Formats: sequence, C-alpha cells, structure tokens
Amino acid sequence: MMNNNYEPVRLEDNRLFLLDQRKLPNHMEYLEAATVEDVYDAIKDLAVRGAPAIGVAAGYGMYIAAKNDLNQSGHIGGLEQDGEFLMQSRPTAVNLAYAVKRQLKVYEALRDAGTSEVDILQKLLEEAVAIHHKELESCRRIAEYGLSLLKPEMGILTHCNAGGLATTGYGTALGPIHLGQERGYNFHVYADETRPLLQGARLTAWELHQSDVDVTVICDNMASLVMKEGRIDAIVAGCDRMAANGDGANKIGTSGLAILAKEYGIPFYMFVPTSTIDMDAHTGEDIPIECRDGEEIRTMWYLEPMAPADVSFYNPAFDVTDHEYITAVVTEKGIARPPYSESLRKVMEDSHV
Amino acid sequence: MMNNNYEPVRLEDNRLFLLDQRKLPNHMEYLEAATVEDVYDAIKDLAVRGAPAIGVAAGYGMYIAAKNDLNQSGHIGGLEQDGEFLMQSRPTAVNLAYAVKRQLKVYEALRDAGTSEVDILQKLLEEAVAIHHKELESCRRIAEYGLSLLKPEMGILTHCNAGGLATTGYGTALGPIHLGQERGYNFHVYADETRPLLQGARLTAWELHQSDVDVTVICDNMASLVMKEGRIDAIVAGCDRMAANGDGANKIGTSGLAILAKEYGIPFYMFVPTSTIDMDAHTGEDIPIECRDGEEIRTMWYLEPMAPADVSFYNPAFDVTDHEYITAVVTEKGIARPPYSESLRKVMEDSHV
Repeated sequence: MMNNNYEPVRLEDNRLFLLDQRKLPNHMEYLEAATVEDVYDAIKDLAVRGAPAIGVAAGYGMYIAAKNDLNQSGHIGGLEQDGEFLMQSRPTAVNLAYAVKRQLKVYEALRDAGTSEVDILQKLLEEAVAIHHKELESCRRIAEYGLSLLKPEMGILTHCNAGGLATTGYGTALGPIHLGQERGYNFHVYADETRPLLQGARLTAWELHQSDVDVTVICDNMASLVMKEGRIDAIVAGCDRMAANGDGANKIGTSGLAILAKEYGIPFYMFVPTSTIDMDAHTGEDIPIECRDGEEIRTMWYLEPMAPADVSFYNPAFDVTDHEYITAVVTEKGIARPPYSESLRKVMEDSHV
Repeated sequence: MMNNNYEPVRLEDNRLFLLDQRKLPNHMEYLEAATVEDVYDAIKDLAVRGAPAIGVAAGYGMYIAAKNDLNQSGHIGGLEQDGEFLMQSRPTAVNLAYAVKRQLKVYEALRDAGTSEVDILQKLLEEAVAIHHKELESCRRIAEYGLSLLKPEMGILTHCNAGGLATTGYGTALGPIHLGQERGYNFHVYADETRPLLQGARLTAWELHQSDVDVTVICDNMASLVMKEGRIDAIVAGCDRMAANGDGANKIGTSGLAILAKEYGIPFYMFVPTSTIDMDAHTGEDIPIECRDGEEIRTMWYLEPMAPADVSFYNPAFDVTDHEYITAVVTEKGIARPPYSESLRKVMEDSHV
C-alpha cells in the first residue's frame, strides 16, 4: 500500500482529522473535526473535496456525531437529523448521501434489535472504517487495471485532481501513476494547472511530488503543444458522472483534451468507479452542468482583479466528453471498451456494490 | 475611424505618451517617454506590447532621440547608436527593427544631402507619423476583409490580444469586431483569458468593453464546451509569424483551438499582416518557439504561489497552428485560401510594403 503521508481523512486516537486542501500547496495542515458541524463546515467550505473523500469523511462524521451524543446525553439521539444536516453540505455529492444512509441503516437496524448504545457506537465506527477501506480497495483495483494500459517511461497528461487527495488511497486517474512509481515505471507526468480553481497546479503537482513522481506543470492551453511535441503517450482523466452510453462528465476542459488526443493519435483513458456510472442517464445530454460564480475567474487567488468588473463571465465547472473520444473506461471491476452501451452494462451487472 | 480613446501610442504637443498596458484593466495610465531610454524601458518592460505597436513607438522614439540631441548639443549626433540601443529592447520584434532602420535611412540620406538639422528633425517626425498611419491603414483594411467573412449576431471566440492595444487602430484579429460594432453587427464575443499572462482577460475584454462590444471572459479550457454548445460561429486569431505553407505561430493555445474548431465544424480565421509572413520559413518547423520562465505560471499575479516550488514548469509562449486547420488567412492585401503555398505567394507578390 502506498505511503499515506497526505491522507485526506484520518482517524487517530478516535479523533477525526481532515487535511485542509484549501491551504495546499503552501501549507499542509490537518484540522480536527470534533463535531458534526465541523465535518459539515469542512465539506461545505472545500477543506475536504472529491466525492469519495467526502463520503469517507461523512462516514466518520456520523460516528463522531453518535459519540458526542452518547458522551453528552448518555444516549445516541438525533442521528437522523445529523445525517440530514450533513447531506446538505454538498447536496449533489452522491458518495456523501451514500455514506450517511449506510450509517443510518446500521444504526436503525441495531437500535430496533435492542443493541446497547455502546455496541451501536462501536458498530458505527466499524462501518465508517469499512466505507474507508472499500474506497481504498476500489482505488487499488482501479490503479492495477489502469497500470495494465501503461508502459514504463511513458509521458502522461493529467487534468484536475483525481488523486489520493480526492479519494483517499491511490486515487482514480492518478492511481496507476502512484502504483507505477512504486514499481519503478518512472513516468513523466504533465499536469494541467486546471483553471479556474487550479487543482492541477495546487493539488496534483503537490500530491505527485510528495510521491517523488517527475511532474511538470503546464497551463491548460499548452496541452496541444505538448501532445504535438511527442511528450504525451497517454491521457488519464477522472469522471464525475458517466452516462450509460459512455459520455463522461468531468472537470471543465476534459472534452477538449479528448478531442486533441484523437487528433494526435494518443489514447485517452477515463477512470470511473462504478459508483459514478449512472445507468439512468442515457447520454451526456442527461447530465446537468454546474455553472459557478465568475469571480472565480476574475478575482480569486489574485492580488488585483484580472478583468473589468462590468464584462460578463461564463464559468461552467464541468463538461461532457463524448464517448467516441474515450479509448477505454477503467473501473474497479475491469476495463470497459467501446461500444460502451454494452460494456458498461456488463460491468454494472457484475457489480456487487 | 474608430474611437481612439485607448490608443497605445500617442504624440501630443510633440511629446510621446505610451499607455502602460501592465496596469490594465484596473488602471488606465499613460506614461511619458521623454527620452530614448524611456522608450527602451517601456518596450522592454512590456508597458507597450504587440509587434506593430512597438514599431510605431520605436518610430516616434527615434524622433524623440533626435529632438533631444538637437536641443541639448545643437546637432543630431549618435542616432545610429540610439537605434542600436532601441533594437535591443526586444530583439526578436521584427517591426521594431523595421521602424528603427526606416528612420535611420531617412536620417542618413538627408544628412548626406546636407539638409539642415531642423529640417531633418521635421522629416523624422513625418516619417514616424507615416509609420503610424501605415499601421492604422493596414489594420483598417484587415478589418474590412475580416468583416466580409462574418455576419451580424455571430458568436466569435478570441484568444490573447490582437487588438488595437497591440497594433494601434482597429487591431488585426479584433479589427472586424470593432468595425462590426461601428456598423451594428452586435457580435457576441467570448474571450479566452489566455494563461499565463492573461492578455485575453486583462486586455481584450477591457478593449472590447471600451468599445461597448458584448464580451464574455472564459478560461482557456472552456473553449471546447462553448463550441459544443453552439455559442461560437467563428474563431479569430492573430499571428506572430506565418511560414510560406500557411503554418502560423501565435500565442500558446491557438493550435488547440484550431483543432477543436475543425472537429466542431467552425471556421478558424488567422489575421496576418503581410509583414508577418516569412517566405523564408518553409513550414512551422522553421519557426522557433520562445520558452519563458515557469514563475509566470507558478507565482505571477498571485497572493501566494499556486504550485510547489520544487516541481518542474514548462512555459512555451507560442505554438504553431498547422495550415490544414486554418480556414482562411486575412491580410491587408486580401484573403488567402488553401492551398496557402500558392495563395500566400500571390499575396506577397502583390505587396508593395
């Protein structure tokens, strides 16, 4: 298992610590989430980010809520309300709701069976750890499948951060890079800085450098040139939601990379845990695109505003990569190839999530 | 002629003023270039930028140098040295050397003919004005040719700043947008912010907004999505140097836009004054790409560094767009269409520059 020195979610001596990713790459600080309100704030304010990492934090958060209840009032009360509250921190994060509901199911079953509250608390801790371990295992499998597509010394282009910071463990798209590093593959990674929130420069470059991977940061608009210059042998990208036909929504800019990859004859791999595949979405048209505040483009990070205040801004957070540009979809159950409407169905049927 | 309220180079009451573009969009300040050293500093430190605008500034700079000589010592001495000095401010800018040499030719011919120094000074002023007017006229023609390719209400994508700020007058790629605005075309412009130096957000958005054009700033990686969404009917880009076969070097990111445009079936127009066409460069392979300091990506503009100090950075300033992706090349002599190896030769033969 990889070196976990920057694990985004940590339980130590029964206390929950979250890596404050807003302060990376300049400061590495863990904040303690001592209450369910602390967990809520950390998720809402993006101290912890990435759907899988958020789910893991929420699992532990439910345990923390129950523990505080028991310590303060002598019994576990109001866990349903705590769960409702926690789910409001980022309403669209599917792993968040999944973790909360999984903990509530454990709690309600044990309560209805008359289990002692001390034992219930212990089971909630075990369930939080199980959610965490399932995520670590899923990432490990994705990393293995992904690595089977790559060769030593390859140049690899990344976008945004689909790494251990977002998922715990190996990450998804960065999984094969971390695993390859452990096995001496010596990849040469080019990390898109990923405007406007700069997750590539701030998080991916930092995370890969922590693992001693050779990483070079470029601006997003340099991707075409590095491909043309022959520096890139494969592109790896995460996925926030994939439709049944293989259209995959991911961080804004991903679709452009996939088109460039096709033009330059470079394989484009999307890393997609099966929990991210939405068989009810027939195509990318069924996936709504979140649009965010233009101030992220105009003023965020900067000493001074970078554009006039009275022009317009358009700040979509995601785009959909058409399935025709995706060479393969890597899941924890195996690698899906076109036609995706068949291969993804097969992967999902084999799933026992 | 367009509203010149942000002309980058201005002569007023015989004094030279340069718009300090480093301070845009937050502060609009003209600095006076009272000596040839001031002009050198303004060009070197990017207060004035864009090859044509630099050429115009240098033309006036030679006049200022001669005027100061005459005022201080009673005769024009050392203009050759002043010219050599000025050409060192940005050694690769072809318009800079052109303007300096044109002024030296005037000076030497008149000096050798025994013309009085007061009359020589007057002729140097006239020549500087002629260089300026030639640039204004070239832009006006490019704007007219460019506008013939566009229709009212079109959505237009721009990259970097090939506008009036870079060239004086209408600009090159932004020329048809300014001219269309005067004629009620009501374009909807999307301006790539253009990392790392953000000329799109800082300069293009500001310049177009000054002219009341409807302009929306996007991050570079959003171009694929706005094209897919049907917001873009044409892409207009400048050119720093074009080879004889039509391969065109321009601001980093241009080549990616051209590939996306082809994939989405959107015309991609490059705006290329004939002074920018280098018939000695057979293809884009003959055009060297300037690589700049990685700190522009990591720390410039920011409150805090945006990536770890000890990772690598790759910061190419330009890329070459392959001729196969260029729908048409717009020059001040007319519009060239593929095959460019023939059409550009024809345009250059018709040139009387």
